[in-house]
Amino acid sequence: MFKKRISIKQVEEGRHFSPKFNSEGLIPVITTDFKTKEVLMHGFMSKTALKKTIETGEAYYWSRSRKALWHKGATSGFVQKIKDIRIDDDQDSIWISVDIGRGASCHVGYKSCFYRSLPIKKKNIKLKFKEKKKKFNPNIVYKGQPNPTKL
Amino acid sequence: MFKKRISIKQVEEGRHFSPKFNSEGLIPVITTDFKTKEVLMHGFMSKTALKKTIETGEAYYWSRSRKALWHKGATSGFVQKIKDIRIDDDQDSIWISVDIGRGASCHVGYKSCFYRSLPIKKKNIKLKFKEKKKKFNPNIVYKGQPNPTKL
Repeated sequence: MFKKRISIKQVEEGRHFSPKFNSEGLIPVITTDFKTKEVLMHGFMSKTALKKTIETGEAYYWSRSRKALWHKGATSGFVQKIKDIRIDDDQDSIWISVDIGRGASCHVGYKSCFYRSLPIKKKNIKLKFKEKKKKFNPNIVYKGQPNPTKL
Repeated sequence: MFKKRISIKQVEEGRHFSPKFNSEGLIPVITTDFKTKEVLMHGFMSKTALKKTIETGEAYYWSRSRKALWHKGATSGFVQKIKDIRIDDDQDSIWISVDIGRGASCHVGYKSCFYRSLPIKKKNIKLKFKEKKKKFNPNIVYKGQPNPTKL
């Protein structure tokens, strides 16, 4: 499925799909809501995750905390149906637009993982919540599972 | 400017800004156009780049190809004025919404770095150009500078 990277012209201006994975074998992924266009999450895909995403039309990631292939929504039910996949100029990052229906994307319970904003041109930074209400209760949905957030 | 990461509750549910940088000292950044909401680029910021971005209201990145602090637009003139900065749940990625006026973001000449789409559920992948025309001629704008794309 992936073509060899031969020249800069081929990578930047060609029609060959030649994704570049980092030293850990991963490629960063931006996930947006195809309706509202808001950014839902930032994740990583392994080669297998990227292949499965393209083949099935549903988003698969590599979970760095669990060190495992991760079918997004397998536990929560909030599967991400792919509406569009893009690759960037040097083919080392992916952008997917997804349909999550009325679901959510963030393990904390918010719709987007980016639920907090920070002020510009200020010394003393206090984050501001942009989503006021959680979409689900993570203590119920992810009951008994370890929190993926690491200090 | 950055607070120590003490607990998962503080990182996920608090107002403290405690970004996590990876083993290379970088944090991934998603950049979107605040008007059209399209994704313009995926980059990385060092601690200094993130501080400068917040302090000046213009996007600074860490150029991995040049191994240097990078004031986006310093050469091309297409400076990115910050309209919003968000941090995600576990504070290891950043989303900035920016104003680039009528400018562009991609060193190849397109507005967005994500100018190519790929088909879903197909074995034989051919990328499809979603932007038909370049916004500028990179051979003129970046004359004599090395191409940041690496094989």
